Amino acid sequence: MNKTEGKKTVVLLSGGVDSTTTLAIAMNDDFEACALTFRYGQRHTHEIEAATRIARSFGAAHHIILDIDLRSFGGSALTADIEVPKGRAVSDISRDIPVTYVPARNTIFLSFALAYAETLGARDIFIGVNALDYSGYPDCRPEYIAAFEHMANLATKAGVEGRSFTIHAPLIAMTKAQIIRTGILLGVDYSLTTTCYDPSPEGKSCGRCDACLLRLQGFKEAGIDDPVAYINKG
Amino acid sequence: MNKTEGKKTVVLLSGGVDSTTTLAIAMNDDFEACALTFRYGQRHTHEIEAATRIARSFGAAHHIILDIDLRSFGGSALTADIEVPKGRAVSDISRDIPVTYVPARNTIFLSFALAYAETLGARDIFIGVNALDYSGYPDCRPEYIAAFEHMANLATKAGVEGRSFTIHAPLIAMTKAQIIRTGILLGVDYSLTTTCYDPSPEGKSCGRCDACLLRLQGFKEAGIDDPVAYINKG
Repeated sequence: MNKTEGKKTVVLLSGGVDSTTTLAIAMNDDFEACALTFRYGQRHTHEIEAATRIARSFGAAHHIILDIDLRSFGGSALTADIEVPKGRAVSDISRDIPVTYVPARNTIFLSFALAYAETLGARDIFIGVNALDYSGYPDCRPEYIAAFEHMANLATKAGVEGRSFTIHAPLIAMTKAQIIRTGILLGVDYSLTTTCYDPSPEGKSCGRCDACLLRLQGFKEAGIDDPVAYINKG
Repeated sequence: MNKTEGKKTVVLLSGGVDSTTTLAIAMNDDFEACALTFRYGQRHTHEIEAATRIARSFGAAHHIILDIDLRSFGGSALTADIEVPKGRAVSDISRDIPVTYVPARNTIFLSFALAYAETLGARDIFIGVNALDYSGYPDCRPEYIAAFEHMANLATKAGVEGRSFTIHAPLIAMTKAQIIRTGILLGVDYSLTTTCYDPSPEGKSCGRCDACLLRLQGFKEAGIDDPVAYINKG
């Protein structure tokens, strides 16, 4: 999967199933991938380690890890001390905007990706948002991605000079099972990824938070065994 | 000017003439101002000190200083080691996109402002962009601000739930002289502000970079003496 020819692109890489599959799709499309990961006051750094393993394993051209401090603002279970919900029915997960919602997170991430892309001379940005499995997050919807792309082309020297940016969200209409099947076809080793909001100190996934439940259901529906270790597997 | 009643708003505050005047306008409109300043690898920290003085002097309800690392991407005289142009004719300054252009800077700043606003329960964001004096920057134009606002209302829980965000850019169509006159009417002490891209170690403005030249011309046209100290005053 090590492709270094072709056009440069920025790929947002968190180390989870979705962003890893997105990286595989971008590289399969002959893009030279420059991965961008954020350290943003997550309570666990296992995501950063996973992203680093994945970028190296895929042969990404560059991997930048940026520190940003979303904790200054508070307001989310992923950055503050609100309890992560456990053991919900999968059918309940996407109904409401979850407590793990981080205000404007994808907007902040895409803004940095835009700055990085313009500096690289890249015209393409890949983000692994998904509207089906995470319908609770407003910044995972196609209309949001379209609005960001429009804004990006007004915001930048490159956009103004007619070298338009495209925000690619290849997973946006896929189910988790379709995402996993796509990744498997592209040779993704999902044992490198991490998903859990609340893993054990040894790095085992809890199996009960919303993220684990959606991941496990996705692997089940895809008919594929999830290769990561769980404390509680279903 | 110490008003703490009214609706909360986030005001982007760099410590220069424009953002300081914008803060004065927001507070004069009875907003409770929460100022947001970025430390982003500027070569000089005098801007942060100026912003801190100004937020305190105005009685802002809060002042958050966020570290963001735009240096990882390179690409601008304000964050990298490109030489700042000096001694240009004012008429030449706004013709092209300047070398001091930072890719996607206002997009990154507004994205954080959006996250902060949503966390505060604020619906308003003030930014001191100006299309006339800085026409070279694509992210200072009204169409850019409108596109950001549209995107912001699709990006966020608050926007989706119908509590729309408004991005206020009260200076967007003003000349520098109009901005300064407005600030003087509102009681702004411009000796607190800083503008120079390349000040002396003692904090004197160079008087010859684009930012100084536009500032000096603005004060001249406003018929007001600029209270900051210069090495070279035109």
